[in-house]
Amino acid sequence: MDVKAAVATKAGKPLSIETVQLDSPQEGEVLVEIKATGVCHTDAYTLSGSDPEGLFPAILGHEGAGVVVEVGKGVTSVKPGDHVIPLYIPECRQCPYCLSMKTNLCQAIRSTQGKGLMPNGTSRFSLDGKPLYHYMGTSTFANYTVLPEISLAKIRQDAPLDRVCLIGCGITTGLGAVINTAKVEPGANVVVFGLGGIGLSVIQGAKLVGASKIIGVDLNPTKRTLAEQYGMTHFVNPKEIDGDLVPYLVELTDGGADYSFECIGNVNVMRQALECCHKGWGVSTIVGVAGAGEEISTRPFQLVTGRVWQGTAFGGARGRTDVPKIVDWYMEGKIDIDSIVTHTMGIDKINDAFDLMHEGKSIRSVVTF
Amino acid sequence: MDVKAAVATKAGKPLSIETVQLDSPQEGEVLVEIKATGVCHTDAYTLSGSDPEGLFPAILGHEGAGVVVEVGKGVTSVKPGDHVIPLYIPECRQCPYCLSMKTNLCQAIRSTQGKGLMPNGTSRFSLDGKPLYHYMGTSTFANYTVLPEISLAKIRQDAPLDRVCLIGCGITTGLGAVINTAKVEPGANVVVFGLGGIGLSVIQGAKLVGASKIIGVDLNPTKRTLAEQYGMTHFVNPKEIDGDLVPYLVELTDGGADYSFECIGNVNVMRQALECCHKGWGVSTIVGVAGAGEEISTRPFQLVTGRVWQGTAFGGARGRTDVPKIVDWYMEGKIDIDSIVTHTMGIDKINDAFDLMHEGKSIRSVVTF
Repeated sequence: MDVKAAVATKAGKPLSIETVQLDSPQEGEVLVEIKATGVCHTDAYTLSGSDPEGLFPAILGHEGAGVVVEVGKGVTSVKPGDHVIPLYIPECRQCPYCLSMKTNLCQAIRSTQGKGLMPNGTSRFSLDGKPLYHYMGTSTFANYTVLPEISLAKIRQDAPLDRVCLIGCGITTGLGAVINTAKVEPGANVVVFGLGGIGLSVIQGAKLVGASKIIGVDLNPTKRTLAEQYGMTHFVNPKEIDGDLVPYLVELTDGGADYSFECIGNVNVMRQALECCHKGWGVSTIVGVAGAGEEISTRPFQLVTGRVWQGTAFGGARGRTDVPKIVDWYMEGKIDIDSIVTHTMGIDKINDAFDLMHEGKSIRSVVTF
Repeated sequence: MDVKAAVATKAGKPLSIETVQLDSPQEGEVLVEIKATGVCHTDAYTLSGSDPEGLFPAILGHEGAGVVVEVGKGVTSVKPGDHVIPLYIPECRQCPYCLSMKTNLCQAIRSTQGKGLMPNGTSRFSLDGKPLYHYMGTSTFANYTVLPEISLAKIRQDAPLDRVCLIGCGITTGLGAVINTAKVEPGANVVVFGLGGIGLSVIQGAKLVGASKIIGVDLNPTKRTLAEQYGMTHFVNPKEIDGDLVPYLVELTDGGADYSFECIGNVNVMRQALECCHKGWGVSTIVGVAGAGEEISTRPFQLVTGRVWQGTAFGGARGRTDVPKIVDWYMEGKIDIDSIVTHTMGIDKINDAFDLMHEGKSIRSVVTF
């Protein structure tokens, strides 16, 4: 079938709006009509060419929501008409990783997904007879896409897809980092570095679980208002304080953060995030994705005296299990998404979404079809 | 009173056996007759002059056992005749750290202990009228010493003090790293770097909690026999394998260690210990103490894909609560200490204990009085 898609033809070039061909879903696969998709920093990272695993030409996009149109042979968990959120980390519930109950990093289709292909080793997308790569197993920058069944979270029908699409990445990553990975408890002091879509979701998560001080750190003062609306109790702009940031934060938290979150992807900030943690028990969670080859470092004394350094991917969420719950939380008013969606546009204007992100003018742009 | 002690007069010089003067215990303090003391790498580290916080002249020693002789005003938890193990991390049960129930790093007397003094800011030891510094709040290289009440674990009377003295540091650090800090569960695969007294205790702890593969890594093949006796299932000598150590260990553990422990204090090994952990859930615990100013580093991707980097001091044990339990385990035959004590000597020969350690000929030497 013919599909309208934004194609990443080459690293560093704007996306090109094309009519591409999409094959029918094969065994265990599902055809989904994408109704909305967010544009995330990870898409920009790959498009820039910095991602060493980036493949071109490809259809990017991994933060979408849509409706099932057709299911391949053997598919039992979704049917046409179901509303779904694509998952860039699947949940097969059968691999050793899923069964460990210690991680959300399902490995069922990892190798083919990393190669931009469906589990049988081929692509469903093509342009002028030449295959296009899938991206993160989702490729939501197209009005129709094919995904493995295990990469779909089935959600309630009354949730607005142009909002809950963000639960496919940023919202869940931030909330989950707090709830699943760090397991922040009521009364804890939390420091969040970077107040983009993920940092804001960390703040919402910290508020949801009853944290006390929720300190946001960002160089951009325009981030303050929404962060405060979401529960931030203190804003720290590193440019506006006297002296070093780490001792400033240690003092502000009466000895250090119980939990800190790095939501930028800057290895120097990752070190600050660890070292501002409380001696004896502070836990620092890396959420941001650093550039290829970059390294973090610290003195081991930081760990020997009780700090813990860890990371999270997709907030430790098991997509098929946890994403529907987060959609419920949004519908019940427990969390907000609307304010994070600062811009909405059609697929024809998707390159504007990247520009707005790079200029720091948007939190999240949502593309609707 | 006159006391026989090994005095560290200067960095880098052998200990000097002297008769020194010891004042009576003051309020909240206890006079203990030390019956036996281990000689640990930390004593050697301070004596060498590498410890930036080392003070001279001082009476070193922190791995002892003895009998209460006299108690100062207000002391209620021990009485003359009680058998005790000195604690270099006290347990006051009243400071925010103790009450957090998240750490064993009691802060009640931290600042004076770090300055080589009793909690009231003075020393009980002197030589020719000049004060000598206490060390780690314990100073067990003397046949009598004074300690704060909160720095004493009261133990059963029938335990041999020339064995259970090692529970004052090495044994508890290793067992506790497994049980309290990493919380290793039955069936887990464990990798231990460094098979000295602490690494051997990690192995004993891993066996105690029912670990499956227990892999010991050491450059010294003579460490193998005792490690196997304690439960090591696989010995890896990095000099004897083809290729890099990390992928070798990942393959040996079917994807990576569930838990790894660095018991050397080498920052390069700390990185290997992290990176040999299993994606998704592997936890690496730093037990060894690195040289001043040295740093650990890794790619943050290691953490974002689910590995956890942490550390432990005294195995996360709350001394007054946990040390008596470990003494029971020894008396019940759950753990062995006897084989770790490779050498015993009088205080006059204590410098031999340092020589044996540096030559790699001893696991632990115990000095008896």
